[in-house]
Amino acid sequence: MHFDPATLSIYLVTDTQQCVASGRTVTDTVQQAAHQGVTLVQIRDKEASARDFLAMTLEIAKVMPKHIPLLINDRVDIFLAAQLAKANVAGMHIGQTELPATTVRQLIGPHAILGVSAASEETLLEAQNSQVVDYVGIGPLHDTQTKKNAPAGRGFEAMAQLRSYTHLPAVAIGGITASDLPPLRAAGFNGAAVVSAICKAPDPGAAAHALAQQWRTTAG
Amino acid sequence: MHFDPATLSIYLVTDTQQCVASGRTVTDTVQQAAHQGVTLVQIRDKEASARDFLAMTLEIAKVMPKHIPLLINDRVDIFLAAQLAKANVAGMHIGQTELPATTVRQLIGPHAILGVSAASEETLLEAQNSQVVDYVGIGPLHDTQTKKNAPAGRGFEAMAQLRSYTHLPAVAIGGITASDLPPLRAAGFNGAAVVSAICKAPDPGAAAHALAQQWRTTAG
Repeated sequence: MHFDPATLSIYLVTDTQQCVASGRTVTDTVQQAAHQGVTLVQIRDKEASARDFLAMTLEIAKVMPKHIPLLINDRVDIFLAAQLAKANVAGMHIGQTELPATTVRQLIGPHAILGVSAASEETLLEAQNSQVVDYVGIGPLHDTQTKKNAPAGRGFEAMAQLRSYTHLPAVAIGGITASDLPPLRAAGFNGAAVVSAICKAPDPGAAAHALAQQWRTTAG
Repeated sequence: MHFDPATLSIYLVTDTQQCVASGRTVTDTVQQAAHQGVTLVQIRDKEASARDFLAMTLEIAKVMPKHIPLLINDRVDIFLAAQLAKANVAGMHIGQTELPATTVRQLIGPHAILGVSAASEETLLEAQNSQVVDYVGIGPLHDTQTKKNAPAGRGFEAMAQLRSYTHLPAVAIGGITASDLPPLRAAGFNGAAVVSAICKAPDPGAAAHALAQQWRTTAG
C-alpha cells in the first residue's frame, strides 16, 4: 500500500439532502468542488437504495478529475459493482458497525484505498494492527447534525489525544470549517473531512478553494 | 444453473423482530423450522448493521442442515463476506431497488442461487430475459405489515396472472398461511414464502411441519 497522506487534506464527504437543499445535485457539487482544491471525495448516502447509490456513483465517477480518489462509504457491494462497470472508484471508507476491515480488504483487493472510522484508543490500535487500513477518520470535532446519532463534539484536545494513538494517516471530521484547519494540522491531522462546509455552501468551488488555501497556508 | 424448483416449496424469510418478540433468536427459529419441513431459508434484516447481519448469517449457517439453501437478502457484500468466512451460504434474493440482477450475478458467481422480487409483467420478463435469475418472488398475496411500504395484497387472481408471465420458478409471498397453499399451488407457484407463519409461531418446528404437510398433500 502506497497511500499518500496528503490525499486526505481536503476530504469531501457528500450529503445528498444538503446538496439538493442547496439547489444542485451531488454530482454538480462534487464536480465544482473537485476542481477547486478537494483532494478526495467520499460518497455517503445511508438513505439511498443500492440501485440509486450505484447510479449516483457512476455519474460522479464520470465527472471526477482522474487524480482525485473517489471512495464509497460502507457498501462494499456498491464499490464492487462500480468496479465491474469500469468506473474509476479508488476505495472504501467504513464505519465501526460495518464489515470488519480485514474482510473488506479481502473483498476490495490489495490496491484499493481503505479507511475506517475510529474514535477510541482501542479501535485506533485495532485499525493500525490490522495492517489492512490506509487511514483513519476521527471525530466528531464539533457537534454535528449531518450524521444521525453522532456523539457530541470532542473538541481539539481530545481529537489531538486520539490522533496520537496511531501512526496511520488521520483525517478529522465533524462540523469542520476553515478556521478549524490550523489547530487540526497542529494536532497532527493529515487532513480535514468536510460535509456541510461544501455541500451547504452557496458556491462549492469557492468553498473548496478557501479550505484548500487555508490548509496550505497553515504550517505543516 | 441447475435450480430445483421444489427448493422453493416452503421458503422461510426471517424477521428478526418477530423472532425476538416470540421469545427466541432468529437462529433458534431457523434451526427448529429447518429440521421440520422448510426447504429454503432467506435471512432478511433491513435494520441490522452489516457487522451484525454478517454475525447472524455465520451463526445461522452453522445450524442449517447442509441440504437446505441459505440465501441472503439484498446485501451482496454480506454474502461475499460469509463466503470468505467459509460459511455455507447458497445465494441471494434481491429486491427491485437493489443492484441489478446482472451485476449481482457477476459478483456472486455462476453457481450461487439468485432470486429477485418482481411484481409486474415488465419486471418478470426482465428477470426471465436476463438469463441470470434462478427464480422470482411474487407478492404480496395478502396485506402484510412485515415489510415496510409493501403494496396492498393482490389476491389469488392477480397472483396467478403475474405467475403466468414467466416460466421461471416462482415463489409467492405476503401474509401466507397454510390455507393459502392449495390455491397457490393450483396457480402454478412452486412454493410459498412465509415470514410470520413461522417467525411468530409458538412452535416454529410444528408450524413448518404443518406447512410442509399441507403443501405435499396439495395436488401439484
